[in-house]
Parts: sequence; structure tokens; C-alpha cells
Amino acid sequence: MFSLDSRLQNDTIVLGRFPLSLLLLMNDRTYPWLILVPQRPEIREIYQLDPTDQHQLLRESSHLAATLDAQFHPDKLNIAALGNVVPQLHLHHVVRYQNDPAWPAPVWGKNPPVAYLPEQVAALRASLCPCLSNFTAASG
Amino acid sequence: MFSLDSRLQNDTIVLGRFPLSLLLLMNDRTYPWLILVPQRPEIREIYQLDPTDQHQLLRESSHLAATLDAQFHPDKLNIAALGNVVPQLHLHHVVRYQNDPAWPAPVWGKNPPVAYLPEQVAALRASLCPCLSNFTAASG
Repeated sequence: MFSLDSRLQNDTIVLGRFPLSLLLLMNDRTYPWLILVPQRPEIREIYQLDPTDQHQLLRESSHLAATLDAQFHPDKLNIAALGNVVPQLHLHHVVRYQNDPAWPAPVWGKNPPVAYLPEQVAALRASLCPCLSNFTAASG
Repeated sequence: MFSLDSRLQNDTIVLGRFPLSLLLLMNDRTYPWLILVPQRPEIREIYQLDPTDQHQLLRESSHLAATLDAQFHPDKLNIAALGNVVPQLHLHHVVRYQNDPAWPAPVWGKNPPVAYLPEQVAALRASLCPCLSNFTAASG
């Protein structure tokens, strides 16, 4: 039975779900930072998903990445499955700019998170979620 | 026409190639750290590969990750496409332990690299490369 890790739950806002993965927004408005969490129990590494799920995760990740690129025009996307602190498999998608506060270093552990205001989350939902096909938005 | 970015060339040792990707060893013996570089020109993001290549990259990455897990028994694998410094698409696979010098932070920019001795590279080639199916080892 899948359940979302409590630290991920605390640090993020659920935007909705793809067929395989939850889509979370990291509650840090320093960077547009989205996370996919495949809804499968006891998985720590991508290769541990069965091949069908691996390919579905890739499709969801590439669809999200293309949408972020089109919407935010970043200098680079950073896509990563790390999990040293939270081993439950989750795939970061971070929109990076040359003038962001961590550039060119990775974002993890760099700056304390700055929480979104509710209206900022609503605006992000309104602009991002309708662009994601095969996606069921969460209310809120 | 694909050619390997000069900074990747300087920082790594070519172990060989899969059907799509070069397999590079980061020349830093602090961590077992392998990099896949799809041999396609002008690609910065995974989603920019055509769908066949995306799925081949996933297969090569998962095969490499499973082999690293079996061989090194890490506490966690870190798999990431960052590219803030070198935008040519390359996918890091880093073997992480709770007692490594960067844990639990990501490894990038953390500790100065410690170059391998030639016999250490030879030993790593001898143990790793034969475990990789569909892989052509480089000489050296």
C-alpha cells in the first residue's frame, strides 16, 4: 500500500496526479520545483519499478519537463532522484536560472525554503495544471 | 555530429559504450561515480531526445543502476541530469554511503576530486564492465 513519506508531505503541496505519480510542488518559491512520486510502495530506486512503471515515469517526467521548459523558459532543468534524506523514490524537477541564488550549484541544502503565499500557489495551479495532459488536478 | 564536451572529457575516463550512451567514470575516487552521455548532438534535456532514445537511455540507466547496487551495496544511488555547468545531456549515477564525505548532501561541488591511480581504474574496469550486458568496453 503506497503512502506518501511524511517529510515529503510536510515540505510540499499536492498539485494532483498522473496515472503513475503524484505531482508535488516543493513549498519553496525560490525556484519552481516540482516532484513526481510514483504511487508504488517500498520503492527506493527507479530500476526497482517494474519496466512498465519505469517507462510511465519517464513519460510523466518528460511531459512535465517539456511543460516547465515551455512555461518558465529556464536556463536549465535539474532532474534528479537523490533520496539520501527521504529514500522513498521521488524525482525532482527544478527550474534553474543563471541568476537564481544557488546557480550553478544544485539547490539541495543551499538556501532555507521560502514558503508560497496561498495566492501564489493558486496562480501556479491555474497556469501549470491545465497544460498537463493525462493529469488530474487536486482541489485546493 | 555528436562530440563529447571537453570538460566531461577532462574530468572522466571512458569505460565504453552502450547502444546509445557513452559510459564515463568520473575521475574522483571519493565515490564510485558513473556518467551516461547519449551520443546525440545538441541535446540538453532528456525530453529533447526522441521517444525511442529516451526509453533506451532509461534502459541503460536502470541496467547500470542495478549493476552498481549489486556490486557496491550502497545506502542510496543518486541519479541526476543537472548540467548547470556542462549543458550537454549527461546522467550522473553516484554510489552513496552514509559515511561518505558529502552525505547526506549531494556530491556536486562538495569535495575536490581525488584522481584514481591507473591500477584502481583497471580493477574497476575488470569488476564492472563484464557485468554490463549490451556494453562494449573501451580499451585502456
